[in-house]
Amino acid sequence: MKTIDAFLLEDVPGYFEGDGRDSDVVLASRVRLARNCKEIPFPNRAGENQLAEVQLRVEKRMPGIGQTLGRQFYRLDMEHLSPIQRGVLAAKSFISPKFTQTPQHRVAFISEDERISLLINEEDHLRIQCMAPGFDLATPAALASKIDDLFEAELDVAFDEKMGYLTSCPTNLGTGLRAMVLLHLPGLTATKNLSGIVNLSPQLGLAVRPVWGNGKENAGDLYYISNQLTLGFSEAELLANMKSTVQEILAHEREARKALAMYAKDGLEDDVWRAYGTLRYARSISEQEALRLLSKLRLGVELKLLHETDTHTCHAILTGCQTACLKNLAENENLSKKEIDRCRAKYIRERLGEKN
Amino acid sequence: MKTIDAFLLEDVPGYFEGDGRDSDVVLASRVRLARNCKEIPFPNRAGENQLAEVQLRVEKRMPGIGQTLGRQFYRLDMEHLSPIQRGVLAAKSFISPKFTQTPQHRVAFISEDERISLLINEEDHLRIQCMAPGFDLATPAALASKIDDLFEAELDVAFDEKMGYLTSCPTNLGTGLRAMVLLHLPGLTATKNLSGIVNLSPQLGLAVRPVWGNGKENAGDLYYISNQLTLGFSEAELLANMKSTVQEILAHEREARKALAMYAKDGLEDDVWRAYGTLRYARSISEQEALRLLSKLRLGVELKLLHETDTHTCHAILTGCQTACLKNLAENENLSKKEIDRCRAKYIRERLGEKN
Repeated sequence: MKTIDAFLLEDVPGYFEGDGRDSDVVLASRVRLARNCKEIPFPNRAGENQLAEVQLRVEKRMPGIGQTLGRQFYRLDMEHLSPIQRGVLAAKSFISPKFTQTPQHRVAFISEDERISLLINEEDHLRIQCMAPGFDLATPAALASKIDDLFEAELDVAFDEKMGYLTSCPTNLGTGLRAMVLLHLPGLTATKNLSGIVNLSPQLGLAVRPVWGNGKENAGDLYYISNQLTLGFSEAELLANMKSTVQEILAHEREARKALAMYAKDGLEDDVWRAYGTLRYARSISEQEALRLLSKLRLGVELKLLHETDTHTCHAILTGCQTACLKNLAENENLSKKEIDRCRAKYIRERLGEKN
Repeated sequence: MKTIDAFLLEDVPGYFEGDGRDSDVVLASRVRLARNCKEIPFPNRAGENQLAEVQLRVEKRMPGIGQTLGRQFYRLDMEHLSPIQRGVLAAKSFISPKFTQTPQHRVAFISEDERISLLINEEDHLRIQCMAPGFDLATPAALASKIDDLFEAELDVAFDEKMGYLTSCPTNLGTGLRAMVLLHLPGLTATKNLSGIVNLSPQLGLAVRPVWGNGKENAGDLYYISNQLTLGFSEAELLANMKSTVQEILAHEREARKALAMYAKDGLEDDVWRAYGTLRYARSISEQEALRLLSKLRLGVELKLLHETDTHTCHAILTGCQTACLKNLAENENLSKKEIDRCRAKYIRERLGEKN
């Protein structure tokens, strides 16, 4: 096991590592289960002692679960982490930003391979999150279900015969399952075909939302797609619906990229190489600009227009260029916006192998 | 001697070569004398036979002059050059664009070291132009005067006791001397101090004009400064006045650069490196953009902010990125704007040592 400091300094989260399926478009997949202890109020209504009780009950199970799974876990107690460190965990999507706000009795367990993240006293008492690179909902779904079984074997969980699992927020009622994929959609964005998909998604029971900013100016062309419904369907149905819809979006994105590469090749190549030139040499760069250029670069790599760098490096920069990670790298919480923009440019240069 | 084709393909004009004085700001200096044959109308009013007569008289002197100077000359008969080739000579400032329009009996002699350009039947019957790298009016002035003496020894030149040399345009009357320096003024431009100098220049008897575009959008931050007056002063007085004024502008430009490097270093460095990144990797670039970025790059090189390239390369690109030179390089007169922009980007990449 690495130290927690070393783990936090890594810029490529473990769930990005490896050759995931459909990784030209899908960066990662995640399945999350929401569970709550019987007869204890949900975290947003629970008192200090009740949160402590939940923490105790869940934590007690961890050694056994680690042993059964044959995995080691980092134990990350929010109360004992600095705001920067919590920011890094949020930037890597291991925890939600909300989880960092009231750190008392909030603990995350993250597996050594960084594909499991268990959160105690987030919106629900226990959230089981499993991740995989590329488009793969089956592996994390199976793993999350197994972990759930291990917990439920010794934990009384709030469950209603009619409603299913009871959750803090009604949108999670039923299965408590939320599947999510992280998609890179520069082709649909450039060909202006994205709004059609976004508009159609509620009818398909899915939510599409940009990772950064709003729909108009989503700097990185990155989108989360997740199921909106949790009630009235089985886990298997939810996952199957999600899978087939994402496959359709995938096909559209690939078509759009093909069209760009065919009908707008010159402009596309120019964009990609200019993005590379700026990322490689700029001395100051905002997060928005870095994400915008990174999207071009990743597209160029996927379309094999450019061989100077690879997908792995793009994913590293995607995480590492975020403000929390840069502050952590510089070991300085008080960097000004201007200093951060300079740190970001330096980090990206180094990541792209530039020596100056 | 190179062949004329090889001479035209060179991207660094000979007068840019070598370590000129004050070359951080002054790219090159030029002195031009305008002379006309007695009793033959000026070229704009001369008939075909009269132009032929002038050509004959001047050309007859060339072998003797070459011998006396110990120099060889390229003979460039506009009538026998293609429009592209004429364009290249104009892009390198050996001839004026006007000289290329009616090619009959228009001949240029350019010395092998590319520091002398003699034009027959330009605005005047004979124009003697001598150039030197950096800020050096004395060398070209002495050389031009020597060449003038050699011509006048055997050529009856139009001269009036009261007016001095008679010239086609009254602004050249008297000495017929026009001294000109080519200045790179990114510091004064960035600190918005240029207009003061431009406004003051007529009172100093000088004209300041941007090399490209108008004052508002002079893409390369390059300016020609030349004497406006030719009448009522001796050659020595004109040159001395020019020298002292240019020295003042030089000092201001250096102050401005120092101020930028001190108070705006971060932004300046970022600009310089981004310019380098774009020039090195873009797949398509307009002349305007190339010149704008090149100005940043040259400034960065002069301020030692960047060591990836040098002044020589900047000067090469300054010439070589011009449309006429790119058409000549591609041996294709009919390139579209889009194709030229791609050729320009490719040429610049290669000049900056990029292999892709």
